[in-house]
Amino acid sequence: MTLPTPTQTADALSVRTGSRVQVTRSLPEETPVAMVYDGTTHAVMMASPSDIEDFALGFSLTEGIVTDPAQIAEIEVVAHDKGVEARMWLAEDRGEALAARRRTLAGPVGCGLCGIDSLDQAIRVLPDLTGIGPILSEAQVMSATEDLRGWQPMHDLTRAVHATGFMLPGQGIVLTREDVGRHNALDKLIGAMNRQGIDAARGAFVLTSRVSVEMVQKCAMAGAGIIIAVSAPTAHALRLAQGAGLTLAAFARGQGFDLFSHPQRLKHEVSDVA
Amino acid sequence: MTLPTPTQTADALSVRTGSRVQVTRSLPEETPVAMVYDGTTHAVMMASPSDIEDFALGFSLTEGIVTDPAQIAEIEVVAHDKGVEARMWLAEDRGEALAARRRTLAGPVGCGLCGIDSLDQAIRVLPDLTGIGPILSEAQVMSATEDLRGWQPMHDLTRAVHATGFMLPGQGIVLTREDVGRHNALDKLIGAMNRQGIDAARGAFVLTSRVSVEMVQKCAMAGAGIIIAVSAPTAHALRLAQGAGLTLAAFARGQGFDLFSHPQRLKHEVSDVA
Repeated sequence: MTLPTPTQTADALSVRTGSRVQVTRSLPEETPVAMVYDGTTHAVMMASPSDIEDFALGFSLTEGIVTDPAQIAEIEVVAHDKGVEARMWLAEDRGEALAARRRTLAGPVGCGLCGIDSLDQAIRVLPDLTGIGPILSEAQVMSATEDLRGWQPMHDLTRAVHATGFMLPGQGIVLTREDVGRHNALDKLIGAMNRQGIDAARGAFVLTSRVSVEMVQKCAMAGAGIIIAVSAPTAHALRLAQGAGLTLAAFARGQGFDLFSHPQRLKHEVSDVA
Repeated sequence: MTLPTPTQTADALSVRTGSRVQVTRSLPEETPVAMVYDGTTHAVMMASPSDIEDFALGFSLTEGIVTDPAQIAEIEVVAHDKGVEARMWLAEDRGEALAARRRTLAGPVGCGLCGIDSLDQAIRVLPDLTGIGPILSEAQVMSATEDLRGWQPMHDLTRAVHATGFMLPGQGIVLTREDVGRHNALDKLIGAMNRQGIDAARGAFVLTSRVSVEMVQKCAMAGAGIIIAVSAPTAHALRLAQGAGLTLAAFARGQGFDLFSHPQRLKHEVSDVA
């Protein structure tokens, strides 16, 4: 089987006061994607059926399954009628470590842990990113989310998917990924950056979405020092960014942004456009 | 301990070209919430720390843990420094059934299932809702999402949370819940409706968000025949709605909407405002 196409057309009735017109809309496809390590499923996400190898690599890195892409010996993408498997085989040491972790912790979901132990596992320890990342101008932050709008072909069709971009100072957005889920778009981008040798510490992640705890965790695990987002952070996500040394710029539009943490990476000159 | 407040204030620098002003923003809190049945964690969600009993009941119903609220003998909400536990005790039969299901299936995540078995479990069988639900006028659908805007105090403060409302023809929106996660807002609303004796078959769910597979599944499990959403459905979610007999109106705003499935619940008269 082959993967479904990431957008599909559907017939609809466009209803306005006094009129009903038959129209065709483009909708994003949404497919269960199973992350399978050494024959055992670790997680199933509902995702856009595209860039699955990027997704598998990025997810493995940001969830801490591997700490280096070389620890994944092989990735095989297998399409079924009910979804997609990303079958990964880990290097021997890493596979044993994951199996041991599964035996002792068994994940937070449905596996016999009590509530308190499960809550302890929900928030992970993040790397310290103080000192990592470039210095950006205010103008570079202001233009980042507008630049990202030019890299969203799936969203242009469907008005319904998220995008994540990576911005390098002086170059603007250099790589993007789209997905029905914002976490998936970020994992896909991080996987693609790793495969193309783009170091997250050299630029900023640019998000079309809110900044939740999971988004900060994934950006931090990828080693970035700066997050620029169109929408708001949660209070918990802000505390994590403050603690991990991440610069968080939110409500970022062409006219300005709110700077919530670690302002030392933003220089206060306004004429310095990338 | 007590629950954290669902919104928190944070200091930020509001950066505009040529100016930096210190401001205070309201941000939504985001807290791990563990659903714990008979001492065992079934799932942990990042959620707004409010309406936890509604959330626990709604989640239990839409995830098929129970089929009737009476099957939950007791709900206790316990706040810890790392999150919130919703501790539920099931009626004896139901507890044994859940434990048996856990032993044989063990959930799709991290518990030894292969990829194909996990994908089989990702999409559940939905009830047939053909014949359920009221007939709405086009004007009622057009006003539903605008009415919902008047019921979003957390969003008014933070511009960053989702809401789900329940609309009864002739009465408009009668009940709403808000959450940082759209699935949680829906589960909270379904729990609250059950506790207040509001039958989902009599009206429509109104969503501020996109319509994903999970949103259709939860609405169908709650027994509603109509979904009205501000944003788009995914193609997969539309197929589920078509198959389950659900009427799906999306891109719904004051001026109109797109009707994607089961138009028989929409009468074609335009002067009939609720």
